Order: sequence, then C-alpha cells, then structure tokens
Amino acid sequence: MSGKIYGVGVGPGDPDLITLKALKVLKKADLIVYPAPEVGTSLARSIAAKHFPTGTKELVIKTPMVSERFPAFEVYDKASAKISKAVRDGKIVAVLCEGDPFFYGSFMYLFSRLKNECSIEVIPGVSSLTACSASLESPLASRNDILIILPAPLDNSELEEKIKTADSIAIIKIGRHFNRIKELLKRHGLIQNARYIERATMQTQKIIDIEKVDAKSTPYFSMILIHSREKAWL
Amino acid sequence: MSGKIYGVGVGPGDPDLITLKALKVLKKADLIVYPAPEVGTSLARSIAAKHFPTGTKELVIKTPMVSERFPAFEVYDKASAKISKAVRDGKIVAVLCEGDPFFYGSFMYLFSRLKNECSIEVIPGVSSLTACSASLESPLASRNDILIILPAPLDNSELEEKIKTADSIAIIKIGRHFNRIKELLKRHGLIQNARYIERATMQTQKIIDIEKVDAKSTPYFSMILIHSREKAWL
Repeated sequence: MSGKIYGVGVGPGDPDLITLKALKVLKKADLIVYPAPEVGTSLARSIAAKHFPTGTKELVIKTPMVSERFPAFEVYDKASAKISKAVRDGKIVAVLCEGDPFFYGSFMYLFSRLKNECSIEVIPGVSSLTACSASLESPLASRNDILIILPAPLDNSELEEKIKTADSIAIIKIGRHFNRIKELLKRHGLIQNARYIERATMQTQKIIDIEKVDAKSTPYFSMILIHSREKAWL
Repeated sequence: MSGKIYGVGVGPGDPDLITLKALKVLKKADLIVYPAPEVGTSLARSIAAKHFPTGTKELVIKTPMVSERFPAFEVYDKASAKISKAVRDGKIVAVLCEGDPFFYGSFMYLFSRLKNECSIEVIPGVSSLTACSASLESPLASRNDILIILPAPLDNSELEEKIKTADSIAIIKIGRHFNRIKELLKRHGLIQNARYIERATMQTQKIIDIEKVDAKSTPYFSMILIHSREKAWL
C-alpha cells in the first residue's frame, strides 16, 4: 500500500464551503495535519472538524506568527519529516489549508520539501478572494478587466504605483495597516469605491462602512475590494 | 412563501469541486438556470447535473459568444424577467455559474438587474485561478507577493506594461491569442517560468510544455501562470 499527501483547501470559513472532493479525502485520511498559531486554536481545523471521521490521528503544526518575516523553516522541516514517515508507512495524509492551498498559503512550504519524495495532490478550495467578493456583493472583474491582489504590508510607494495599474484591486491582510491604506485610497480618489470586510463567511464576518472601521481592531483576515468603475458590470 | 435567487459557483470542472453549500441549494431549488452557448451544451450544467434532484425545472440562457463584445443585454433582460417572475411566485431559483459567480462570470449581469427587486445570495466557488494553480502544482503567491490577472485579449502595449508590475501573473482566456502571448513572454524573458494548462480539473484537462502548444487548438478555457521567482516558495 502506498501513502499519499493531499493539500486540502477547506475554504474561507463557512464549513459548508468545503468541496465534495475535500470531504472524500478527509474520509479516507489516516492522519490529518493542520497549522495553528503558537497560542490559540487552528482556523483550518475549526472549519473542517465536523467532517473528521472519529478516531483519525491529528498532527498540529505550531507556526510562529510570520506575517512579514521569512517562514519558519525549522517548523516546516520537522513537520515534513513526520509527514514523510507517515507516507512511507503507507498512510494517507490530509494537510488542511484555510481557503485555497496555493493562494498565499503556507502549504507550499511543505509541498516544496516533500514533492520529490512523496506523491502529492492539491485539492483547490474556495479562496478568501472570491468569498469576500460574494459576501460584499461586489463582483471582482468582468470581461477584459485587470485584477490585482496587493498585500497591505507593502510600502506606500509600491502600493501607490500598483493601484493605478488595474481595473479591480483586492488589498489583502489589512490588519494593522488599515489607517495607512485608507489614507492612501483617499489620496488617489478611490475611497468611495472601496468596500471593507473581515472574516468573510465566518460566523464572525463583519462588513463595515470603510469610514467607520475601528483601525485598532482590524484583523489579519480582512480585505478591501475596489473596482475603478464602482461595479464590475458597468 | 418568499422566493430567492442563489448565484451558485459550481467550480472549475471536476464535479467533486462543488461545495456542500452549493449542493444544499441545488437540493431545494425549484428552478435551475444556467448559461449555454447558442450551439452546444452548457458547461455549468454538465458540472452540476449529477446533483440535480429529479424533476427540477430548468431554464437555459442561450448567450451569444461575447469574448470581446459587450454582453448581450437583451438576453439578460429576458432571462431576468423570467427569474423575477419565478421569485414573485415564491420559487427558489439557483443560477449555476462555472467556477465562481463573481470572478469574470456573466452572473453579474443578472445580479445587477435583479438585486433591487429580489433577495439574492451568492455562493462562492472554486475559481479557475486556483484550479489551474493546483493542477500545475504551481503556487500562485506567497507572503507579500503581488498577483495580477490579465485577460489575453488585451493589446500588447497594455500587457507588456502590466507584466512588469507583479511577482505572479495569471494570463486568462488565452484562446486564439496564444502565439502573441508566447512571443510577448519571450521578449520579456518570462517564457522559462511560464506554465500552460487548458480545461483545468475537467476530464479533458491538458498540461502542455509551452513550447509544444498547438496555437490552432488553444481553447478559451486556458491559462498561463508565471511566477517571477519561478516558484512562489522561493
């Protein structure tokens, strides 16, 4: 019997936004792996937990918060060694990923370490990008629109250059950068088209008028969508 | 009893890449609506058909091929009138959308017509963007990468300007533009990092070395992914 790794996108937060394909993998998995912060619970686990078969083994990858620093290589080295051993023992390993595994996900650091020695399949998931768009009732792009995804931690000069290049802009990972981003959008006349959302499709989802957002409590899982025509269908 | 419209992302092609949430909507739908070309079958229907409850009414929206022209307004006006009547009659209407409803989807033209008179909920789906990334085993973006989505029909001067602005590039809707795009990527030294895929996750999926693609048969559902670092994890 040969083992295999699945990188499983579990979707953006609503447990019902998991795919049938992901569910089928969970059902047959011998080991379910997921990231968690050093303190606190795993979001990926909380999204998928109700679909775990009883008795399946679990492995937590405790990762330090690394929004700007280089990923914690040692953590991924150790986790890869454990996963690789399980695969050599013939086990099916499901690695849970919030949203989609390859859309700003940390799964790629396991994938890069294991791809040459293990069979790996990636199950795409609903990303935060389309989840935010659906919840905000703001289509991302139509026809020949250019869509750009910009992480908020980039510095102002880079952001100011890039926001001019696209019809549609998604600014991700807002977190503590909210005020800076808001001022930047004002300077460029884009604030009236900007829509803010946090924790899209989770039970704690909030859509807030961008002028009323409390910058002190803006989480990492937040996004601002802007379409230069206000609505993509125009 | 009050009617409601659901815009349902059915995912990129593999029928198992539909979400639980989409399935629940299909189960309770009184009317299932989907786009189809003037000649030929509906891709959205073919993805979801095995999940249709027996006896559910169907409504086809026959849309002319409009890759570059303005959407066929009359078609959407007529379909909206039919959907609106069903909702007033208390029906649950599921409108199927390939991939995600708001990622370059035509559902927005129904949404814009019906949003003020009907209750509408959008169910996000797995988009072609993350499906192509998964099948190509090429992560889209990591950490503070900038990701840009560029429709191939844009002219060369615009494409050449924009490909310089991002760490990661997805060129969508390749179709008859393949040779022009390939030459453009060569001129900018990006061809060695470019990966080509068509009909991702469908049974007819093909991943082809970009130097060996037959430009005469490149379909609309094709994509080229390029990461400036070759791999997003580097």
